[in-house]
Amino acid sequence: MSNEAMTYYLASFVDELARLGICDVVVSPGSRSTPLAILMAEHPKIKVWMHADERSAGFFALGMAKEMRKPIVLLSTSGTATANYLPAIVEAYQSRIPLLVLTADRPHELRDVGAPQAIDQIHLYGKYAKWFVDMALPESTFSMLHYVRTMAGRAVAMAANGPAGVVHLNFPLREPLVPNLDLQNLWEKGRSEGKPYIKVTKGNLELSSDELKLLAEELQEVENGLIICGPEDHLELSQALTRLADKLQFPILADPLSPLRTGSHSKQWVIDSYDSFLRNDEVKTSFKPELILRFGAMPISKALLQYIQHHSEARQIIIDQDQGWREPTLMASKMIYADPIRFSYSLAEYLEKQKEPSLWGTKWKQLNEISQSHMQTFGKMESLFEGQVVIELQQLLPEHAILFVGNSMPVRDLDTFLANTDKPLRTMANRGANGIDGVVSSALGATVSGSPLVLVIGDLSFYHDLNGLLAAKLHQLNATIVLINNNGGGIFSFLPQSKQEKHFELLFGTPLDLEFEHVVKMYGGRYKRIKDWQEFRLAVNQSLSTVGLDVIEILTNRQENEQLHRKLWHSLSEKISKWKVQVDQDENRG
Amino acid sequence: MSNEAMTYYLASFVDELARLGICDVVVSPGSRSTPLAILMAEHPKIKVWMHADERSAGFFALGMAKEMRKPIVLLSTSGTATANYLPAIVEAYQSRIPLLVLTADRPHELRDVGAPQAIDQIHLYGKYAKWFVDMALPESTFSMLHYVRTMAGRAVAMAANGPAGVVHLNFPLREPLVPNLDLQNLWEKGRSEGKPYIKVTKGNLELSSDELKLLAEELQEVENGLIICGPEDHLELSQALTRLADKLQFPILADPLSPLRTGSHSKQWVIDSYDSFLRNDEVKTSFKPELILRFGAMPISKALLQYIQHHSEARQIIIDQDQGWREPTLMASKMIYADPIRFSYSLAEYLEKQKEPSLWGTKWKQLNEISQSHMQTFGKMESLFEGQVVIELQQLLPEHAILFVGNSMPVRDLDTFLANTDKPLRTMANRGANGIDGVVSSALGATVSGSPLVLVIGDLSFYHDLNGLLAAKLHQLNATIVLINNNGGGIFSFLPQSKQEKHFELLFGTPLDLEFEHVVKMYGGRYKRIKDWQEFRLAVNQSLSTVGLDVIEILTNRQENEQLHRKLWHSLSEKISKWKVQVDQDENRG
Repeated sequence: MSNEAMTYYLASFVDELARLGICDVVVSPGSRSTPLAILMAEHPKIKVWMHADERSAGFFALGMAKEMRKPIVLLSTSGTATANYLPAIVEAYQSRIPLLVLTADRPHELRDVGAPQAIDQIHLYGKYAKWFVDMALPESTFSMLHYVRTMAGRAVAMAANGPAGVVHLNFPLREPLVPNLDLQNLWEKGRSEGKPYIKVTKGNLELSSDELKLLAEELQEVENGLIICGPEDHLELSQALTRLADKLQFPILADPLSPLRTGSHSKQWVIDSYDSFLRNDEVKTSFKPELILRFGAMPISKALLQYIQHHSEARQIIIDQDQGWREPTLMASKMIYADPIRFSYSLAEYLEKQKEPSLWGTKWKQLNEISQSHMQTFGKMESLFEGQVVIELQQLLPEHAILFVGNSMPVRDLDTFLANTDKPLRTMANRGANGIDGVVSSALGATVSGSPLVLVIGDLSFYHDLNGLLAAKLHQLNATIVLINNNGGGIFSFLPQSKQEKHFELLFGTPLDLEFEHVVKMYGGRYKRIKDWQEFRLAVNQSLSTVGLDVIEILTNRQENEQLHRKLWHSLSEKISKWKVQVDQDENRG
Repeated sequence: MSNEAMTYYLASFVDELARLGICDVVVSPGSRSTPLAILMAEHPKIKVWMHADERSAGFFALGMAKEMRKPIVLLSTSGTATANYLPAIVEAYQSRIPLLVLTADRPHELRDVGAPQAIDQIHLYGKYAKWFVDMALPESTFSMLHYVRTMAGRAVAMAANGPAGVVHLNFPLREPLVPNLDLQNLWEKGRSEGKPYIKVTKGNLELSSDELKLLAEELQEVENGLIICGPEDHLELSQALTRLADKLQFPILADPLSPLRTGSHSKQWVIDSYDSFLRNDEVKTSFKPELILRFGAMPISKALLQYIQHHSEARQIIIDQDQGWREPTLMASKMIYADPIRFSYSLAEYLEKQKEPSLWGTKWKQLNEISQSHMQTFGKMESLFEGQVVIELQQLLPEHAILFVGNSMPVRDLDTFLANTDKPLRTMANRGANGIDGVVSSALGATVSGSPLVLVIGDLSFYHDLNGLLAAKLHQLNATIVLINNNGGGIFSFLPQSKQEKHFELLFGTPLDLEFEHVVKMYGGRYKRIKDWQEFRLAVNQSLSTVGLDVIEILTNRQENEQLHRKLWHSLSEKISKWKVQVDQDENRG
């Protein structure tokens, strides 16, 4: 292939991405990817985000795609570089985040013959790529330029269309690898007026009016119903579910990664403290739901999972627009594949009249009020209690800030302590596969549009993606990292493993004994270890008002933290039991 | 499954590994893998190497397996943790290193239903795993204990038998996950006297005497022959090829990652400087080989590759005991699948008499002498020339030390500057896929048996696996890292990309501007930046005589380094051209 042919072919591909509005590309250094990298850097509408570690680069792109809600492009050279993307690709698959992964490859004659940096990249990501194409070798005939622009259009649409996910295009390239930037009309061989070559439009999944009518009739009869909304990044869902709850008089158990706990919509039906009060056995057993409507992924709360599992007689209906199967309770009786927004609004229309206020709804609200006020009051401690970080941040964060939380403990504390608020905040976490890997990079990726962002992360997870901090340095990103350092795997103190004392610290406690101040400095960040909550507030406020990377470290103790959580839940449980006695007495009297 | 059944089933598996001599297990923390991890920690013959980052853990195990020449076990929990192994698995596949990867998984009822940390791990590593088994759920019937011991035996044999590679066993496990260590006879349900349940024996690939005789006859006629030995970790090969070369009077072009340049065998035929002198066009074109016998993987030297490609008329014979296809020149006319040691000795037997000393052999030797002496003399500079690191280390390293080199520039400098020596040294690099990832961990893994080890690595590669340094801290490993910091991708200055000035620094130079001293301190290492060669020698000697991690940093300049290399090759080339004129004159006279 001539250098000219290669240049026009790849320039057409790159230009087509830009025409489709895909203007952010995360590139890692390498030789075989040279022509794509140079053409991306050269394109006036494309921004290249350089990242030297492909694993972190993958998660950085994932965070960008999550925040911007559109596909981000990854580009790597051939060889093990490509294998480093797998963790982010798995997370993207599981959490339905659109990524377009481009890998440079050796041409066919250098495959499987022991050539350097040549590995088999065909279907490298297995089922985790929605679509894989081993691209044609560059040619610049009319039909091949049509081919390459069409592939760009298909790839972007495929990545973005539900279930959003990963598309992998593998580009075999021959030397010479440096494109000719002096060629004429590099970006002008597509449709006129900068239009995309092909635009893909996908309709919405909608139930028929008969189906909706039948379902409305069924729901109209239900007294003790619940709406559950798990992790789901769809702002409009707040309004839609609120409307549906109003008609049905059903409480909405809202996961902290749903859009329901924060923002200006009505919180009348939004229950934010179920993770705490469903730990009370009397509540768990006596609050019998007849029917549950579930939206979004499975919620974080284990107490909620066990509550659902306890009530196997409840009819459980799952709504999933992406035709997945997010139903680990194995108790659902109906799976509805439909757009949840349209489904909720339409269903609300078919519900003839708003139901009367029910005792069921009132009791959930009371319980929630008691619990939330208890958690907020008692969660505020003198000592550096990990849960309080969420309570504090909810106050400190400005409107439209992003609160990104790590897996393991931080996301559970978010669930326990994030209270309903009118303040528009966006919560995020990598909840596809719940990994502790790639969290730093994902959060940093979510900052690139400029929203203020605070990441709450444990030390093991922070360690796992220290390399991710390079992006903050290279791209002068603006982020605040609250590092909860309990020197090891805090969550294991809550699990049965903690009883296995003999091997516990070696296998589960895994103290790393790292002074993270060193590495934060290496990446040009400011580091502050806080000693009390006043220092914490000062540090967060200061960080939010200055640009750059701040790492605010809180040293905690794993055992103490576990005990404080248990104490909190226990004291709440006692309070609830008392309330329950009162309520039962009132009911009996009434 | 009862806790007792699970415990006996998994204990039998773990015990069988120990009986097979597989006593090193690299474990990363996690919940689902709890029973396997605890049973491994409990087994008296198994050592658990904890590592918190699975990517580094994978390469750490790879380095151990490479050094010990036997399978090492990896254990991780479910989810993206498993995906982090892929880079090391790809490298293991490409470089034929045995690894046994164990992943814990959710049981069948929790798969593909949106359960937390559950991803599809079936055939996760695609073709990069030689063998994949989704193991049965734990049961402790007689037949299932036979099953699990048999699987351990098969897995270990499969990983170790050529081509050595990766075996992946996926263990679905149900709660409760803590095994019962109080059970009787945990390790005593296998064969008597601690024998393995099943031992797999594989024969050698050997040519028939007719085939050998024919080949010997063919070789007997060849005047201008060459033996080429690429990267190959088989000590005995030195003797075998030396014997063959003696009979054939063929020079052996020996890659620095072959065992031929170092050790006590005869160096009479070992050519160590071809990478330098084959850059001379007159040599390249006028030294016409009739026949080439190739052993091992494709050598590092690009000059050698181009030399072979230039002489397409030469008969090229490849010997590969693992039935692969390591032949990127596409010019071989014979592929022989046979054990290279037995093949070489047997062939030498069939060669009736030793040939007469030939002009061909003498010229290669002269050329090599001139070149090696030039490189060693002129390579020693006042300034901190990157190539000199190898020259210095070759002197400084004690016998039986390991010299591990990173990819990109260090491995090329090793090729250029590692001279024939009787000192027994072991050279290593990750030359399967030639990645810059995982090098720190691979080198640290190679230290665990206690050999002194020096790793020479560039800054980009060092950055890529900074997390790997944790192992040095957790396990008090003894290693010296020579960090050649040219602030970015040094190799690109040698490639055509360097002419593309506009985007060069962004895409290829990629300066990271990191002060690595910080991070070395975090991991408890000693750090020293040296200013001249005297300081370098002192630092290396000091490091070799003390335990722990030392990082010795040399700041170099990418452009300057490229110019010095070119200067060196250029001055050698001039010297060679003069020698060539003389030789040609002598030949014409004679």
